[in-house]
Amino acid sequence: MANWHETEVRVRYAETDQMGIVHHANYLVWFESARSELCRSKGFSYKEMEAAGHALLVVAEAYVRYKSPAFYEDVLTVKTHVSEVRSRSIRFVYEVHRKS
Amino acid sequence: MANWHETEVRVRYAETDQMGIVHHANYLVWFESARSELCRSKGFSYKEMEAAGHALLVVAEAYVRYKSPAFYEDVLTVKTHVSEVRSRSIRFVYEVHRKS
Amino acid sequence: MANWHETEVRVRYAETDQMGIVHHANYLVWFESARSELCRSKGFSYKEMEAAGHALLVVAEAYVRYKSPAFYEDVLTVKTHVSEVRSRSIRFVYEVHRKS
Amino acid sequence: MANWHETEVRVRYAETDQMGIVHHANYLVWFESARSELCRSKGFSYKEMEAAGHALLVVAEAYVRYKSPAFYEDVLTVKTHVSEVRSRSIRFVYEVHRKS
Repeated sequence: MANWHETEVRVRYAETDQMGIVHHANYLVWFESARSELCRSKGFSYKEMEAAGHALLVVAEAYVRYKSPAFYEDVLTVKTHVSEVRSRSIRFVYEVHRKS
Repeated sequence: MANWHETEVRVRYAETDQMGIVHHANYLVWFESARSELCRSKGFSYKEMEAAGHALLVVAEAYVRYKSPAFYEDVLTVKTHVSEVRSRSIRFVYEVHRKS
Repeated sequence: MANWHETEVRVRYAETDQMGIVHHANYLVWFESARSELCRSKGFSYKEMEAAGHALLVVAEAYVRYKSPAFYEDVLTVKTHVSEVRSRSIRFVYEVHRKS
Repeated sequence: MANWHETEVRVRYAETDQMGIVHHANYLVWFESARSELCRSKGFSYKEMEAAGHALLVVAEAYVRYKSPAFYEDVLTVKTHVSEVRSRSIRFVYEVHRKS
């Protein structure tokens, strides 16, 4: 997929909850990892930008649709792309798929 | 506030990130706590319903707008109310305020 | 109990794992909360000390014995006391009990 | 290293705290991941054992010495080995190193 960056995530035991599925808050954590990886893949270090005091990227909005659960030890692919760049904001879109 | 249930949350150190603010994923965790408390306040135990195998409430969708950051040791009020009840879903709305 | 400070914790759904009990890493988070509360109860703000750049308290060592599991919605009491103060370190001891 | 299994962990932003280092509770989560990977590398699935109801491995004790901090985006190697096997318990030992 041309414009999508792919990151692999292995579901950790700690990420499950007593329903036996991944707790829904963890997806935001994976999206953030995927964002970092996308940046690194473009030769851009979010870490250095932040350390240099150039800018802070604060999450202003998040929307998630959970279509089917993920389970312990699943290997997931988080696909990420930049859907909108404005003067003061960037919008990322993610899709999580179970690796087949 | 008539229809809003209020839950108090004290920000934990572990909930901050290196930007010095609460990591955005924690709000989903607080919303869930607030939801549980709202249910308990109505004499309804989500825990017992789940244990009895009557139903599982899975999070299907989440939307968050982050308006201003929260900080370590802040005491926050999470206001919760049920905005929509349908045959197979319930929608909750939350507002988080710094306690004044 | 004379020298023990008591903090109450309500177990969150997100703190459970697929075994149906509290994931063991969360105890360290609760100990930290209890530590903060103990400090506040003595009129000492860890937050201000850190912000003033006077000192950083880094966790150097942790030991936990898990005697019996805690469950979703349990109300727990975390008892905390300072067991040792040395020139460059403080040792805290915690006990977690299900509230009776 | 003959008897040590190595797992790689990339530090996530969410794993840092406001001190700018990895929050100490996350190490227990990484140890668990490393344990799962060690099992998988031996052709043993903890997931299947649990699902089959054969056994549950509960963490009974944890001890951590934090020697130096880890930072956002660090690539760490978690070395794991089984140090003791008894009739009802297994002891794992872990070492975390910054990848050089």
